[in-house]
Amino acid sequence: MIKAEIITIGDEILYGQITDTNTQWISSELDKIGIKTVRKSSVGDTEEAILEIFSESSKRANLVIVTGGLGPTKDDITKKTFCKYFNSELIDHLEAKNDVTAYFQKRNYVLSETNKSQYQLPSNATYIQNTMGTAPGMWFDFEGVIYISMPGVPYEMKGLMTLSIIPRLQEHFKTPVIFHKVIRTIGIGESMLSEMIDAWEDALPINIKLAYLPSMGSVKLRLTGFGEDLNTIEKQVEEQFEKVFPIIKEFVYGYGNEEIEEAVGKLLIKNNQTVSVAESCTGGYVGHLFTKVSGSSTYFLGGILSYDNSVKINQLGVNPETLNTHGAVSEQTVIEMSENVRKLMGTTYGLATSGIAGPNGGTSKKPVGTIWIAIATEKETITKKLTLGGFREQNIHLTAINILNLLRKICL
Amino acid sequence: MIKAEIITIGDEILYGQITDTNTQWISSELDKIGIKTVRKSSVGDTEEAILEIFSESSKRANLVIVTGGLGPTKDDITKKTFCKYFNSELIDHLEAKNDVTAYFQKRNYVLSETNKSQYQLPSNATYIQNTMGTAPGMWFDFEGVIYISMPGVPYEMKGLMTLSIIPRLQEHFKTPVIFHKVIRTIGIGESMLSEMIDAWEDALPINIKLAYLPSMGSVKLRLTGFGEDLNTIEKQVEEQFEKVFPIIKEFVYGYGNEEIEEAVGKLLIKNNQTVSVAESCTGGYVGHLFTKVSGSSTYFLGGILSYDNSVKINQLGVNPETLNTHGAVSEQTVIEMSENVRKLMGTTYGLATSGIAGPNGGTSKKPVGTIWIAIATEKETITKKLTLGGFREQNIHLTAINILNLLRKICL
Repeated sequence: MIKAEIITIGDEILYGQITDTNTQWISSELDKIGIKTVRKSSVGDTEEAILEIFSESSKRANLVIVTGGLGPTKDDITKKTFCKYFNSELIDHLEAKNDVTAYFQKRNYVLSETNKSQYQLPSNATYIQNTMGTAPGMWFDFEGVIYISMPGVPYEMKGLMTLSIIPRLQEHFKTPVIFHKVIRTIGIGESMLSEMIDAWEDALPINIKLAYLPSMGSVKLRLTGFGEDLNTIEKQVEEQFEKVFPIIKEFVYGYGNEEIEEAVGKLLIKNNQTVSVAESCTGGYVGHLFTKVSGSSTYFLGGILSYDNSVKINQLGVNPETLNTHGAVSEQTVIEMSENVRKLMGTTYGLATSGIAGPNGGTSKKPVGTIWIAIATEKETITKKLTLGGFREQNIHLTAINILNLLRKICL
Repeated sequence: MIKAEIITIGDEILYGQITDTNTQWISSELDKIGIKTVRKSSVGDTEEAILEIFSESSKRANLVIVTGGLGPTKDDITKKTFCKYFNSELIDHLEAKNDVTAYFQKRNYVLSETNKSQYQLPSNATYIQNTMGTAPGMWFDFEGVIYISMPGVPYEMKGLMTLSIIPRLQEHFKTPVIFHKVIRTIGIGESMLSEMIDAWEDALPINIKLAYLPSMGSVKLRLTGFGEDLNTIEKQVEEQFEKVFPIIKEFVYGYGNEEIEEAVGKLLIKNNQTVSVAESCTGGYVGHLFTKVSGSSTYFLGGILSYDNSVKINQLGVNPETLNTHGAVSEQTVIEMSENVRKLMGTTYGLATSGIAGPNGGTSKKPVGTIWIAIATEKETITKKLTLGGFREQNIHLTAINILNLLRKICL
C-alpha cells in the first residue's frame, strides 16, 4: 500500500484565520488513484516545526505532499527549509526563470527583487510548471520518499495536481488501475439507503469497494474497482451498477460531479422546456442555484421574490382572500404563486416556495420548518409539505433541494 | 506560552470524504483566549495511529484536544484507546448514564445496547455534559498534560467548548486576560489596507496585536489586547481603535461577527427604509443574502429575477429600445431596472444587477466580469461599473458584495 502524508504550512491556517480546503481535496484525489492518506498535519511557519514534521512523515509514508509557504514574502520559509532538510542549496532554475519572467511580462507587471526568489529552487528539485501563478511546484526523490511542494492557492494547487502531479504519481508508484463510478442520490438518508442495498453490498466482489459520501440533503455512492486492466474493471463496476440501480432508481439523479441543479438543467434542455420561480421563504436561493450553472439562461427565464405579501398580491396576483383565509404559508398560496408565475413568464413550469425558515415566526400550528412547495405544469399543479425544523440556512437549502428534486421527477 | 495540539480522528476525514470544519473553529477559539495551536493532525480510526499521535503531541503541547471517534458504532475506538493510553478502564459513569437515559426518554427513543456504550467513560475522565447529543465530553489530566475529547458533530462540539471547556481552560491555565475587537472592512484589499495603516501598526503597544483576516471581497482587522485587567485592556484597545478609525473609516462596515448583509439590514431598520431587487446576472443571490438574515422581512419586500430579456420587458417594464440600443449589460438598462423595481414594489431603494458572469457570453467590448449595478433612490439613481473577470461564482458573489456596500454608503 502506498501511504501518503499531507502537510499544510502556515500560521494563518494553524491559528484558524483561514480555512484549509486543500487538504481534503488532495486526500480525496489520492484516494481515487489508490494512495491512502495516513496522516494530515498543519504546522506553523518555523524551520523547527517544518523540519520536525518532514522527518516524522518520512518514517511513516512513501509520499509527503506539502502545500503553502511558497510566496515571495519573508514568512514563507518552506524552500529554505527544504534545502536544509535535503542538504541542498537554492539556485536560479532556468526553466522556472523563463516561466516566471514570461508570466510577469504577459501581464505588464514589474518583476521586483522579491519576486525573483520565485524562480530559485533547491538544487535537487524537479521543477513542475505552475501555469496559473508564479510559485513553481517541486518534486523531490530523497532516500526513498517522494516529497511534493505546491503553493497554497487552491486553484494553482489544483492545476498542478491535475495536470502534472497525479499522472506522475501514477507512473512513479505504479498505482493500481482504478475505475470510479459515483452515483448521486437525493431524497433518502444514508442509513435507509444502506439498509436497502445491504445484500448487494455484502455480495460485492473483493476488488470493488463502496463508499457513502453524505452531504446536506443528498448521499453519493462511490463504487471503486481495482485491478490491472481498465476495461475489465470498468465492465465489473458497470455490472454491479446494473444490479444496484433497479433498487435505488427513484433516488438517483445523476453521476460524477453533477449537482441536482445541473441534472435538472440538462433535463430541461433535453425536453426543450423552461422554468420560472416564485420564491417566498427561499428569498432568491432557488434562482441562485439555477443560475450558478453556466448556460442556465437557456431554460431559466426569471422569477419573482415575493417575500412580502404586497408583492404576492401586486406582482404575482395572489388573491388577498387566499392569504387572509389560509395564510402565506399554505398549500393554497403556493398553488396560486406557482400557477401565476408560470403564466406571467410563459414558462413550461412555475415553481413556488413559502414557509417559516426560522428561527422566529413559528406557531404551534405552523412551527419553524413548516414549508409548502408547488410546481405548476400545463396539466396540473403538484404540491408538497415539508417539515424540516432545522436552522434557518439549512431550511432554506433543503427547501431548494426538495423543489429541484420534485421538478426532476416531473421532467423525467 | 500555552501550546495546544488539535487532533481529528476518523477515516472519513483522512480520506477526504467529509470536510473538517471543527479544527479551524477550535484553533480560532483557542487563539482568542491566548492559547497557541502548534500543530493540527488528522489520523485514522486505528489504535496504533491514535496512540502514536497522543504520545507525540503530549511531548510538544500542554493541551491536546481530540474530536471525533466517539459515536456508538464499532469504528469509534477513541475511548478504548484512551483507556489503553492512560492505563485506565471503561466504567459506567453515573452522571453520564442519567443524562444519556434522559436524552433518549425525552425523545421517546429506545436506548439500545449499542447506545449504552455512550455512558461508559475511562475511569480517570472528568465528565463534561453534552446538552446537544449523547456522546459526552471528557477532560483528562495526565502527567502534566490536559487531554480533551469531544464528539465530531460540529454543533455538539461547539456547545461543549463554549459552555464548559473554554471557561475551564481559562481557569486551569490561568490564561491571560484578553480583549478582542474585530473591525470589518469592505472595498479595499489586504495589501492596500496594510499600507494605509502601516505607521499606526508599527506604533502599537507591545501588548496589542493586529491580525488581518481576509475573505472574498472583505478584510477583517482583529485587535487583541493582553494583560491582567479587562477594563484596562479594553480601554487600551479602544484607544488604538480611535486612532486607526479615521484612517480607514470609509471602508469600515461593522464589527465582530456582522456580515455586510446584516450591517445593511441594521441601517435599513434604523432609517425605517425598505428595499427591493431586480437581478439579472446575480439570479437571486442578492435576494438570498438579504433573506438569509433572520428578521429581514422588515426591510426586504421582494424582487424580480429578470434573467431573460422578456422578463426585463414584461415584468420590469424596461424599454425594449434600451435593450436593443445599449444591450442588457449596460448602464441604461440597470438604471431602468432599479427605478422600475423601486416603483413597482414601493420601496425606498431599488437595486439592480446586470452583467456577464461567465465563463461564456463575453465579447471584446464586454468581457466576462463586466457588470453594471444601480441603486435607485427617491432623488437619484447611482450606478457603478465593475470589472471583475474571475470565475462565475466569484463574479456573482463579488457583484452582490459590491451592491450591498454601495447601499450601505447610501444609507449612512
